[in-house]
Amino acid sequence: MRPESSALLTDLYQLTMLDGYFQRGMRETAVFEFFVRKLPHGRNFLLAAGLEQALEFLETLRFTPEELDWLARCGRFSRDFVDHLARLRFTGDVHAMPEGAVFFANEPILRVTAPIPEAQLVETRLINILHGQTLLASKAARSVLAAPGKLLVDFGLRRAHGAEAGLWAARAGYLSGLSGSSTVLAELRFGVPSYGTMAHSFIQAHDDEAQAFVDFARAQPNNVVLLLDTYDTEAAARKVVALAPQLEQEGILINGVRLDSGDLAEHAKKVRRILDEGGLKEVTIFASGNLDEYAVRDLLAGGAPIDGFGIGSRLDTSADAPYLDCAYKLQEYAGRPRRKRSEGKATWPGRKQVYRRYGPGGVMTSDVLTIEGDPQPGEPLIQPVMRGGRRLTPPTPLAESRARAAAELARLPPASRSLDDAPPYPVTITPALRALADTVDARTR
Amino acid sequence: MRPESSALLTDLYQLTMLDGYFQRGMRETAVFEFFVRKLPHGRNFLLAAGLEQALEFLETLRFTPEELDWLARCGRFSRDFVDHLARLRFTGDVHAMPEGAVFFANEPILRVTAPIPEAQLVETRLINILHGQTLLASKAARSVLAAPGKLLVDFGLRRAHGAEAGLWAARAGYLSGLSGSSTVLAELRFGVPSYGTMAHSFIQAHDDEAQAFVDFARAQPNNVVLLLDTYDTEAAARKVVALAPQLEQEGILINGVRLDSGDLAEHAKKVRRILDEGGLKEVTIFASGNLDEYAVRDLLAGGAPIDGFGIGSRLDTSADAPYLDCAYKLQEYAGRPRRKRSEGKATWPGRKQVYRRYGPGGVMTSDVLTIEGDPQPGEPLIQPVMRGGRRLTPPTPLAESRARAAAELARLPPASRSLDDAPPYPVTITPALRALADTVDARTR
Repeated sequence: MRPESSALLTDLYQLTMLDGYFQRGMRETAVFEFFVRKLPHGRNFLLAAGLEQALEFLETLRFTPEELDWLARCGRFSRDFVDHLARLRFTGDVHAMPEGAVFFANEPILRVTAPIPEAQLVETRLINILHGQTLLASKAARSVLAAPGKLLVDFGLRRAHGAEAGLWAARAGYLSGLSGSSTVLAELRFGVPSYGTMAHSFIQAHDDEAQAFVDFARAQPNNVVLLLDTYDTEAAARKVVALAPQLEQEGILINGVRLDSGDLAEHAKKVRRILDEGGLKEVTIFASGNLDEYAVRDLLAGGAPIDGFGIGSRLDTSADAPYLDCAYKLQEYAGRPRRKRSEGKATWPGRKQVYRRYGPGGVMTSDVLTIEGDPQPGEPLIQPVMRGGRRLTPPTPLAESRARAAAELARLPPASRSLDDAPPYPVTITPALRALADTVDARTR
Repeated sequence: MRPESSALLTDLYQLTMLDGYFQRGMRETAVFEFFVRKLPHGRNFLLAAGLEQALEFLETLRFTPEELDWLARCGRFSRDFVDHLARLRFTGDVHAMPEGAVFFANEPILRVTAPIPEAQLVETRLINILHGQTLLASKAARSVLAAPGKLLVDFGLRRAHGAEAGLWAARAGYLSGLSGSSTVLAELRFGVPSYGTMAHSFIQAHDDEAQAFVDFARAQPNNVVLLLDTYDTEAAARKVVALAPQLEQEGILINGVRLDSGDLAEHAKKVRRILDEGGLKEVTIFASGNLDEYAVRDLLAGGAPIDGFGIGSRLDTSADAPYLDCAYKLQEYAGRPRRKRSEGKATWPGRKQVYRRYGPGGVMTSDVLTIEGDPQPGEPLIQPVMRGGRRLTPPTPLAESRARAAAELARLPPASRSLDDAPPYPVTITPALRALADTVDARTR
């Protein structure tokens, strides 16, 4: 059984609450929404991602016989309740923003409408999926904004937090506009183009660095990117120049070189000069090693002659903001809007819609957050995607979501494109939503 | 097919390098070691974790027919090479520190000795496993040091980076000394005790907060922990006091209450007073909401009457240090020691051993890093765990590794137990190792 699809990949309290609902016969319709309360420091927008995996999770949700057996034996639950779990499927509706949509604080990107046991049980994994991929997509989008037109490759699998985090970084990164990923399985699974060069170990396993270059070029003649910094970067660049004519006679062209340590700007300039003087003007320079969007921006601003970047750990862990302050909250039960008022964590009640307005050139100008059924000027962003536990359309191809993300990033207002804190994008709360919050508070006071 | 065990969960360059080794007939024995170059800011030690999953990965490594088929079709590799991959198994040896061992910068915690294609291919996933679990175990150990004797529970699955990250946080956290986790699947999979209370949604779904408390208590009479902060924390505490006699008549005791927002110290003091005055001295107070080891330390130092803590996002993402500067590097090939000299990333060559010395009371005093076959006073920490691709002993039970971690933490010198930067624990490099590095440099200069 894959842990990703296990119904037990959840918090224990979901099961104990379900037991409470079961014993009290509570099965009325609940409405939960997923949103981010506050953007992290330095983030001026977020990019929605993970909807495809979320819908797949809901469509296939069920407890396996092994899991049911374990639940019956664990001493916490009655046989009746375990039988109830055995029959449980997700039969609800989902409304959502599409993957690749830009969104802001307090705007729901997903709404679940279902009998409360179903809507409750899926909370933990839905947050896990939407949080994880949105976090990574939003991080990757910043590199895309920082280095337009450059080759940008996710290199972070090794330091991603586990298998799924690595796959999500590759998928979400490509969705956001990265060129691809070094993760091979992401190509098989999601069609994310794989990229790769060579590691220091390949050089070190040879007694002679130049021989290692030749061996690698002959083995992979269509993808010759040679790693220069194992011993001495500039000396290695001169070896590349010396080898090029011999390889060319064999019909092999050197595509690029990679720098992975030291002062990348300085090395890039020196190596560019060595390559150019050696007649290798077409050979590209690819840089990696502790990079993120800030480093990429600074390297390009300093005029470093770098054609592409491999971005690893800081991308795959969203290192400057490793989690989002997000929530999946009950907004309505049994036809009545609800909200919690916990200090610093109050939520807007009811089923909500976001309307987006655009100015000249199609640039986003402002959003309006309101209750469903209170139409506003602008484009409504939340649309039905699942009814009665079944998707309304086939899965959206990743390439299509990637095109949407590119279009959305192109429409971001200039201030929101900044890598640093900018004045917040305007999101207005309507009087209708404020009035509903007051009504709910008066009832639960 | 589970992504965790896919041979394609790797970087593309591993496959292109393997192709290079294959075409040149390079199959000599390689020695790679995994180590952390530098401890992150504020970390004074690390706790080794992930060895069990690493060994499982090596024992079961193989390409599936579907993967081989895809590799043959992807346009990068010859049929001969794909056939070579079809036969590939891990047949090497592994030496390692046990899970739960304390270690420091530059000390290898795992060594792979195998024909170079095998040792190379496994690099990415081995790093992914050892990095991920060591990161999370080391983070969790800090909460254990900050709150001795308190109930400490991992609450972070929802914001962990994917399914595997959530399971690892539960496993590594328990290994490090946490009491358990809210993640149910971690109990089924690894025997990590699950803990859980109730969520705001359960309260909100009821029209009356007191009724929600009663319903929950009756459904789960052996685990009655009531959440107080949905609307007004102190008002909820008074409702708990009012309900207690009625529940007691039904034979139900309230075990605890949970605070999840606002000034936790302030609320804990007020709630403690309300509970005590209401005759509920035995009811414990459990706190959660944006906690980490620093917050826990400060709450306890301020005398907050809190008996347990749920630690979530900041634990599961190791938020203040979301990755480690670690590497898996070739140290020997075909009988010759190797190292790279890349700026800021030079490594110590050869097969290494770590000796640890202890002072009065069994407190660790210093480590010595040397080459294998250069015996030093102290305890050698790296031991054989796999030979010819097979484990030397059955998997170590998690409880046993947890006991080891507790013993190791108890032997840490006082300075290293600090949550803030302390003088580094002394790790000495022997003359033999320095001499070997010089020899290797002279050869590759």
